[in-house]
Amino acid sequence: MFDIPALDEQAGQKVEAHVNQLTKPPGSLGRLEQLVIELAKMTGSHVPQVTPPGVLLFAADHGVAKTGVSAFPQEVTAQMVMNFVRGGAAINAYSQQIGALFAVVDVGVASDIPGEGVIRQKVKYGTNHFCEEEAMTQEEAKQALLVGYQQANEMIEQGIRCLIVGEMGIANTTVASAILAALSGQKVEQLVGKGTGISDDRIAHKTKVIEQALRLHRPDPSQPLELLAKIGGLEIAAMAGAMLRAAEKRIPILLDGFICTTAALLAKLFHPYAADYMIAGHRSQEPGHRVALTLLGKEPLLDLSMRLGEGSGAAVAFPLLQFAVNMLNMTTFAEASVSQGGEQT
Amino acid sequence: MFDIPALDEQAGQKVEAHVNQLTKPPGSLGRLEQLVIELAKMTGSHVPQVTPPGVLLFAADHGVAKTGVSAFPQEVTAQMVMNFVRGGAAINAYSQQIGALFAVVDVGVASDIPGEGVIRQKVKYGTNHFCEEEAMTQEEAKQALLVGYQQANEMIEQGIRCLIVGEMGIANTTVASAILAALSGQKVEQLVGKGTGISDDRIAHKTKVIEQALRLHRPDPSQPLELLAKIGGLEIAAMAGAMLRAAEKRIPILLDGFICTTAALLAKLFHPYAADYMIAGHRSQEPGHRVALTLLGKEPLLDLSMRLGEGSGAAVAFPLLQFAVNMLNMTTFAEASVSQGGEQT
Repeated sequence: MFDIPALDEQAGQKVEAHVNQLTKPPGSLGRLEQLVIELAKMTGSHVPQVTPPGVLLFAADHGVAKTGVSAFPQEVTAQMVMNFVRGGAAINAYSQQIGALFAVVDVGVASDIPGEGVIRQKVKYGTNHFCEEEAMTQEEAKQALLVGYQQANEMIEQGIRCLIVGEMGIANTTVASAILAALSGQKVEQLVGKGTGISDDRIAHKTKVIEQALRLHRPDPSQPLELLAKIGGLEIAAMAGAMLRAAEKRIPILLDGFICTTAALLAKLFHPYAADYMIAGHRSQEPGHRVALTLLGKEPLLDLSMRLGEGSGAAVAFPLLQFAVNMLNMTTFAEASVSQGGEQT
Repeated sequence: MFDIPALDEQAGQKVEAHVNQLTKPPGSLGRLEQLVIELAKMTGSHVPQVTPPGVLLFAADHGVAKTGVSAFPQEVTAQMVMNFVRGGAAINAYSQQIGALFAVVDVGVASDIPGEGVIRQKVKYGTNHFCEEEAMTQEEAKQALLVGYQQANEMIEQGIRCLIVGEMGIANTTVASAILAALSGQKVEQLVGKGTGISDDRIAHKTKVIEQALRLHRPDPSQPLELLAKIGGLEIAAMAGAMLRAAEKRIPILLDGFICTTAALLAKLFHPYAADYMIAGHRSQEPGHRVALTLLGKEPLLDLSMRLGEGSGAAVAFPLLQFAVNMLNMTTFAEASVSQGGEQT
C-alpha cells in the first residue's frame, strides 16, 4: 500500500566523515552531529535541507468527548480551528517564527466551519462514542488516512523540506491513550494524564472510559486500520497518512507530542520504514508520551514541560534541525589551517 | 563599582496574568511561559524583545597550556580567531542563523593576530603559568574585565536585546575548573572533564596541575578579582565584565557552557544581582558544568551533549527565547471567542 525507501546509509557516512573534519573537537556538537547524519540518510543528500518546513494541522471531534473527559467542551475544537484560521494560536505564532507553510484541515469536526482558510476534507461529523460502538468504519478510517496522505503530498509539491503534523480535537488524549494501551499492553492508568488540565477525579473517570472501550472492542494491536476504526480518531488517521506520504518522499518528519507520537506508531504499523524518517521534537508532560517514544525508539530533542499539541512542540524543536544542517557551513581544519588535536577519546 | 537594578516584578506579574488568558490550556507551554515572565522582569517591559541578539567572543591564551592539558596546541587559539574572522567556525554559522551581531575580541592571545576583523584589546600576551606564579596582576585582571564591559556596552549601543558571550582559549577548561574548585570547595577530580577531548591519563595530569595551582595560591573564594589574577584567565575576566554591563542595562544574558557559567559565577560575586539577568542556555558535557549551574541556581534549557564553547550552545538555545516572546502574539480566549476550560489543576 505504501512505498517507503530504505535510509541512504552512504549519504550518512559521507556527512559523518565530513563533520569529523570541521573546525571543532570531534563530537563537540553532540546531538546536532547525529542529527545532520540522520537528515543525510533520510533525504539521501550530503547537503540535507530542512527549510521551508510545513505545518499540517488536522482537526476532528471525538464522540467520547460527551462523557466529560476533557477540561474543555467539544465546541472548542471548532472555535480553535477558527482561531488557527485567524492566526491567533500558539502554532500560528510558531509557524511564522520558523517560516513554515501552514494549513488547517477539517477532517472531522462535529460542526461546519464557516468562512475561508480551512481545508474542508470532513470524513464525518466527529467519531462515534467508542464505549457504545466503533468510532468509525474501516472505510472511514481509510478515507481519513488518505486525506492526510494527500494533504502532505500537496505541501511537499509546494516545496517543504520537513513536515510537522499537528492536531486539534477535544478529547484526543483520551483516544490516543486508548490506542497506546492497545499497542503497548500497558495498564491504562499508567498512560493517562491530565491532558489540557483535568483533576485527579476526572483522570480516574477518563481511565475507566478507556478501559470500557478496550473491553468492548478488543482491538488487534497489529492492525492499524482496525485500531483506528474501533478507537479513532479521524485526525489521528490523517496524521498517520501524512507521515506515510512524507516518508515515501524522503521528507524528514518532526514529531510533536503524545497524540502525534501515537499517530507515528500507527504509521510505523502501516509500514516499518516510516519511523526511519521521524525525529522526536520534544518530550510532552503527558505520561503516555514516554511509553510511546520508547515504543517508537526515539529520544526527544527538547524537554520543556510542554503539553499543548497543535504541532507546537515540534515547531519549537525545528531550529535545532537548522543548527544541525548549518553546521555544514563550517570550514574544515585543512581549509582553515587550524592544527588538529593530537589525541581523541 | 557596578550598578545593577533589581528585577521588575511588576512587569513579570503583568505578563504572567496575560499569558494565562492566551488561547491554550494554562501552563501548557511549560518552560516557555516561565521564560517570557523572566524576560519581562529582566527587561522591565510587558512586551519583552530579544532580537537582535549579540555574540561577543573573547579570545585569550593561558600559560598552563604549555603543560599539555589540552588536546590542541596553544597556537590553535590564534588560528581559531582567524577562523572566526573569516566566518568558518560553528559560532559563525550559528550567529548567522539567529541574526546576531558578532564580534571577536583579542583580550590576550599569545601572538599578534594579523589583518582586519578582530577587535584588538590585548591586555597581555597570554597569562603566566599558574603553577609557577600568579596568572596576572589584579590590575591586568581589572583591565580585562573592563575590556568586556566596554565591548558589551558598544554592542548594547548598537541595539542588541540579548547578550551571548563566547570564548576561545586553549586550556581554558583547566582554568575554569580551577576557579570552580575554589568557588565550590569541591574536589578537583569531580570537576575536571575531557575538555576538547583528552584521554583519561591526561585528565589525571590536568587534575594534578589544578591541585598544584590551588595549593600554591590558596585564592579567597569571595574575592573575584583575586581569583582572576591568581588563576586567570583574561577572556574569563572579559566575559564577566560583559555580563555585568548587560545586567546594568537590563539586557538578558544567555549563558553558554562550562567556561561561560564560571565567568557568570564571578560576575555574580562582583554584584549579586548580575545572575538575575542570566538564562542558562544548555548543559555541557563537561562535568563541572553541573556544579557551576547549581551554584548559580540555574536550570539549562537544552541538554544536547554539546561541549564546544565559542557561545555555540547559547546560540542554539536562542530561538527558545524567541518562542517565549512570540507567545505574546497569540490572542486571548475573550478576543478569539474560545470557551475556557471549567477546571484547572
